[in-house]
Amino acid sequence: MRLRIDLAYDGTGFHGWARQQALRTVQGEVEQALDTVLRTRGTALTVAGRTDTGVHARGQVAHVDLEPGLLVPAAGRSADPATDALARRLNGVLDPDVRIRRISEAPDGFDARFSAVWRHYAYRVADRPETVDPLTRSHVLAWKGQLDLTAINDASAALLGEQDFAAFCRKREGATTIRSLLDLHWDRDGDGLVVATVRADAFCHNMVRSLVGCLFAVGEGRRPAEWAAQVLAARERDPAVKVAQAHGLTLEEVGYPADDELGARARESRAVRTLSPPATG
Amino acid sequence: MRLRIDLAYDGTGFHGWARQQALRTVQGEVEQALDTVLRTRGTALTVAGRTDTGVHARGQVAHVDLEPGLLVPAAGRSADPATDALARRLNGVLDPDVRIRRISEAPDGFDARFSAVWRHYAYRVADRPETVDPLTRSHVLAWKGQLDLTAINDASAALLGEQDFAAFCRKREGATTIRSLLDLHWDRDGDGLVVATVRADAFCHNMVRSLVGCLFAVGEGRRPAEWAAQVLAARERDPAVKVAQAHGLTLEEVGYPADDELGARARESRAVRTLSPPATG
Repeated sequence: MRLRIDLAYDGTGFHGWARQQALRTVQGEVEQALDTVLRTRGTALTVAGRTDTGVHARGQVAHVDLEPGLLVPAAGRSADPATDALARRLNGVLDPDVRIRRISEAPDGFDARFSAVWRHYAYRVADRPETVDPLTRSHVLAWKGQLDLTAINDASAALLGEQDFAAFCRKREGATTIRSLLDLHWDRDGDGLVVATVRADAFCHNMVRSLVGCLFAVGEGRRPAEWAAQVLAARERDPAVKVAQAHGLTLEEVGYPADDELGARARESRAVRTLSPPATG
Repeated sequence: MRLRIDLAYDGTGFHGWARQQALRTVQGEVEQALDTVLRTRGTALTVAGRTDTGVHARGQVAHVDLEPGLLVPAAGRSADPATDALARRLNGVLDPDVRIRRISEAPDGFDARFSAVWRHYAYRVADRPETVDPLTRSHVLAWKGQLDLTAINDASAALLGEQDFAAFCRKREGATTIRSLLDLHWDRDGDGLVVATVRADAFCHNMVRSLVGCLFAVGEGRRPAEWAAQVLAARERDPAVKVAQAHGLTLEEVGYPADDELGARARESRAVRTLSPPATG
């Protein structure tokens, strides 16, 4: 029996998603909570977006396979689905910086990683002193100079589409760096914050933060708008591109196809990216 | 020379606004930063809303009186107003949980406390598991039961207007507990959070959190909508009213009249409330 787990976390106190010996990670905490609540051992999660240290998530999706019969409704609450009871019990065990938002039985063919058709990240920046809000400082970068959104959007548009993003990726033997960048644009929200919307079929390691770091140089006027496209075309990491700080980045949402296309999508992604690591920010 | 200081803070790490010996308070930190930056001693701030321990502010307003000549533009930046330079230097000295958003020369007759015509607080609640966001847990209360906004708004409407709020105030000898409650309503925002808007000419100590605590009992269905008006009419603290937790409360904005009415408003408020402490949440 496969469960889909929707969860959110403040990345500040975690060494990223992926389980690591002796370090506090989101995967490690949630797997341990599952083992505690279900009285199992070695429960393993598969995730849509393997976030780095300090990166947050509001719309992370994972799946877990359980032995049938492990999931029982809470005693005396038979009207309450067993999945809701499990979510409540996990939240009772987990620290408040990670929250289970929903647990549901996964439809046939669902794979949190391989069925996903896109990942949507947001990068948030307060670029004026009057928009710096101490209450959101955990996930909004305070930037000293003001960003020129026209220039940064011009530069961003030139990066869209299916491209080889080797210039913005940490190289990995045998892994492709070709990705489809579906959306990359910058807006100012109601509170005056600059929000970058970054959406792709998948991301290679460090890709979102490298893109954002490159575009900051354009937004600040240190580089012309054409520079981003030049960096991309070189297909090699450019030391002039600074990787933007982790804490401004949040995984907002993961897109999946309709239920009857889940299996086909998973087979397709697996064929293209089996050798590459799970999508990371 | 009087300066108006607009500031914001995350109340989590402060023992409230008011300066206290050996405790970290917002007033203490900002006064010390002013003394450091201006090389003065004993600088004293006057504030619009004296928030309690754990209460936050986005739109707090204070004023400070400085000796003329203390304020000079930053060297080499003569185009930059001296007030902007001061804000920047203060933010360089202060911890990131308190931010100066703007400093301006105060118009004649301005008094941060006594010229204010209203204070607007927001109380934020996540009352469904899927709306609990670890990234905003510092200033949004996670509530177990779901709130009935129709009932809570009916109860709230009955409290509006000029009333004796003794039932919701901590009593203080010689201080009036009559206040004008200008607005009290509950909405669900775009993220599904419940947000209470609470606006009054001024608040006595604990008043917002007592009102919210009383209304929670109605919203949860533990009390009928009429109960809030009954508590108010009794003019005595009711032990059944629980004061809501501090961390859901944020001072959002302080209203001032047009510049030519600032002095008259200050004289009027001073006459009514000189014996009472500054407005508190």
